[in-house]
Amino acid sequence: MPPESTAPSPELLYLLSADEEDFQAACADLLPADIAEALNELPVEAAARIVAALPFHRAVQLLDEPELEHRGAIFEQLQQTQAAPLLEAMSADQQVELFRELGDEARARLIHILTAPTRDALKMLLRFPPTSAGGIMTTEFVAVPAEWSAERVKTYISAVGEAKETVYAIYVHDPATRRLLHAVSLREVMIAPPDRPIIQVGDRRKPLSVRATTDREDVARLISKYNLLALPVLDDGGRILGIVTVDDIIDALISEQTEDVQKFGGMEALDEPYMQIGFGAMIRKRAGWLCALFLGEMLTATAMGHFDKEISSAVVLALFMPLIISSGGNSGSQATSLIIRSLALQEVTVRDWWRVAVRELPAGFTLGVILGVIGIARILLWQYAAQHHWSAIGYDYGPHHLLVALTVGISLVGVVTFGSLTGSMLPFVLRRLGFDPASASAPFVATLVDVTGLIIYFSVALLILRGTLL
Amino acid sequence: MPPESTAPSPELLYLLSADEEDFQAACADLLPADIAEALNELPVEAAARIVAALPFHRAVQLLDEPELEHRGAIFEQLQQTQAAPLLEAMSADQQVELFRELGDEARARLIHILTAPTRDALKMLLRFPPTSAGGIMTTEFVAVPAEWSAERVKTYISAVGEAKETVYAIYVHDPATRRLLHAVSLREVMIAPPDRPIIQVGDRRKPLSVRATTDREDVARLISKYNLLALPVLDDGGRILGIVTVDDIIDALISEQTEDVQKFGGMEALDEPYMQIGFGAMIRKRAGWLCALFLGEMLTATAMGHFDKEISSAVVLALFMPLIISSGGNSGSQATSLIIRSLALQEVTVRDWWRVAVRELPAGFTLGVILGVIGIARILLWQYAAQHHWSAIGYDYGPHHLLVALTVGISLVGVVTFGSLTGSMLPFVLRRLGFDPASASAPFVATLVDVTGLIIYFSVALLILRGTLL
Repeated sequence: MPPESTAPSPELLYLLSADEEDFQAACADLLPADIAEALNELPVEAAARIVAALPFHRAVQLLDEPELEHRGAIFEQLQQTQAAPLLEAMSADQQVELFRELGDEARARLIHILTAPTRDALKMLLRFPPTSAGGIMTTEFVAVPAEWSAERVKTYISAVGEAKETVYAIYVHDPATRRLLHAVSLREVMIAPPDRPIIQVGDRRKPLSVRATTDREDVARLISKYNLLALPVLDDGGRILGIVTVDDIIDALISEQTEDVQKFGGMEALDEPYMQIGFGAMIRKRAGWLCALFLGEMLTATAMGHFDKEISSAVVLALFMPLIISSGGNSGSQATSLIIRSLALQEVTVRDWWRVAVRELPAGFTLGVILGVIGIARILLWQYAAQHHWSAIGYDYGPHHLLVALTVGISLVGVVTFGSLTGSMLPFVLRRLGFDPASASAPFVATLVDVTGLIIYFSVALLILRGTLL
Repeated sequence: MPPESTAPSPELLYLLSADEEDFQAACADLLPADIAEALNELPVEAAARIVAALPFHRAVQLLDEPELEHRGAIFEQLQQTQAAPLLEAMSADQQVELFRELGDEARARLIHILTAPTRDALKMLLRFPPTSAGGIMTTEFVAVPAEWSAERVKTYISAVGEAKETVYAIYVHDPATRRLLHAVSLREVMIAPPDRPIIQVGDRRKPLSVRATTDREDVARLISKYNLLALPVLDDGGRILGIVTVDDIIDALISEQTEDVQKFGGMEALDEPYMQIGFGAMIRKRAGWLCALFLGEMLTATAMGHFDKEISSAVVLALFMPLIISSGGNSGSQATSLIIRSLALQEVTVRDWWRVAVRELPAGFTLGVILGVIGIARILLWQYAAQHHWSAIGYDYGPHHLLVALTVGISLVGVVTFGSLTGSMLPFVLRRLGFDPASASAPFVATLVDVTGLIIYFSVALLILRGTLL
């Protein structure tokens, strides 16, 4: 059963483009994320008209929605007198997202309508890459001096709560140096005696923190491991620059997941929904890796050129070629997916490559033996069927079919073992070279293994069939 | 730069196995997740001794850590007089996790030491599958009657806050029917006038909710879209059964991500970290799909059996076989990864299959033309090199090399178009048949496309080369 649906209805879409009063009434019942989804379906001009018509606080909520697309373009449509207060009221992390979408010119124009403190905060945040803690943090957090009482903190939150990204994590600093001393949850403040100094409320351990340059995946790991609602980002002096909240982390996790799946499928990450990205942009994102893989795979044609005499004297060898090389690719793809994920979850580190190799070698060998036995059985069964004139299956592999079966079986053991080992080592090699291990896509591994698979196959054939078929 | 590390130090591991007083001192500075990680490295008996030695509230915190492994085995080591209060004090969702790990016998023994209300709540939660909202929810939430004032709610939270999973989402019910009427955040309660009835605090829209059977991925989507800290789970009568909190969702997202990556690599999800799963279990999880793919790939040997005469009269055809079929697999793997992810994010639904097909057909054709042109250029270049005796590259494809190049080029267009289309449609077909679209792994698509790729290649060859090479 689907969850109680909240998707924009066709009626809403109608209302959005129709009369403004009807529309205001319709909006009153909707959540900002749903209004955002409905606006995404409209032309930018219409979306801008609607933003301009909304009550101020609803417009700010809507513009703060990460779901809302083309926020930059919407802002460019607004009158400057409207744009300035809206932009000023948006939360800092969403201002950053918005400015990232804009061109240089629009950016220069909009940044000047901001007040000086907002502008400075924004410029600070824009310095960090969007995949770092600094790039997703917000500067609207609750910070209180160490000498305040629990009661005073509660009163303070009642007063300023509305303007903060979260009020559930409260950061206690030294009033003189502004260094972060303590982090306390609103729950701990609520259950503490009202007159207790805030510095003595809750758990007295050193608060967890990250630096602005910490990768968002590492931030996600900390927030997930310690079940946090927010994590402070500190500067070199131990002063708090901003906080990363759990909802930013969920969005980051989902984006990373999409990127990883697309990379593992053998392409660049699209960065846009499939049905929305332009045809040309999609072709560019896919053609790059496809051509690279094609060029790599061309080595198979070169390798096979060296074995053309063997193929013409034993055509039967060609029949099993796709079967054998694809088995290497498949086992390699399994091993790669295991290791990419283990590296991402930090279950293994680059230094563990040797432990992984020692595990993959017997695993690949065992899997190879299983497939080898099935392969030999298949050949002998078809041979038997051909000799006994079963109509459905059967193929006569000639007088040396036992040797052919042996060649296929041994090659499978070699190719699958090699595939597992290559597949498991590739992510380590990529990380070592400074690339993202997730670039070790299934097609990449398959391409690597195909060429070697052919060489293994024909070498085994030369060894076993020399003097008979070859 | 790595985040400020919190991993258990070697000294801690030493302390854990050494003197108990030293150990208690060491624990005082550690977060429960870190103690859990350290205990995971120890034998179960040692871990149980340490749990027994910890102060009661620290032991409960530790046992509530999802990071802690073998909780079931640890409980089986504890004295019943120790186990009962610890188990009783654990949070409901973690009790469920613990009972899921236990065998029938241990389960029956432990459930009887619980008090009747805890036992009933646990039995209710255990009825739901672990991937549903009911399976990850907790029953420890804050619920208040509609007539209470904001001030009374705050006082109530101060009193009961410690025992609840979260106090930041407050659920307001009708005191007579216990139906959920309203959901309000603690932030809204804090900033509201103290005497305002709680039912009038915050946003008056109908609260979002799910059913116990809702899939946890759908719960994750709602929590992420609406930036929630918790989502209530309702029964048929609109009464609240429990809540799913954002930290459960992060854990669920990470598990789903691991499963998806492993499935896409062409294997069953491991369900355990790579370095910890037993060798036999890992082989079983990998061999199933590997054998299935191998059996599917055997069709290539059958298909090629039908073309053995063509191969023996034109060995040159065999040389390009791996290149051509792998290109189909690669383009198919790209398309599959795009569509699996779009389905997971609900950017497309099953009904959109036709819109996707209409997009993939020209995309595949364009990519095929790009590869076809490169393929033709490669053959002509090698031919030219052979005729002019360049030593590094070159291969003489015979007098009909232009026709061979044409065959390869046209086949590539056909195979890549077919691969993209098959790869994009497979997830839809799987979902329609009731399977997880993520089972459409890169190796699965490659296997599907390999057989057809061979047939396309040899059919094009028969058409173009008949009367010359064939």
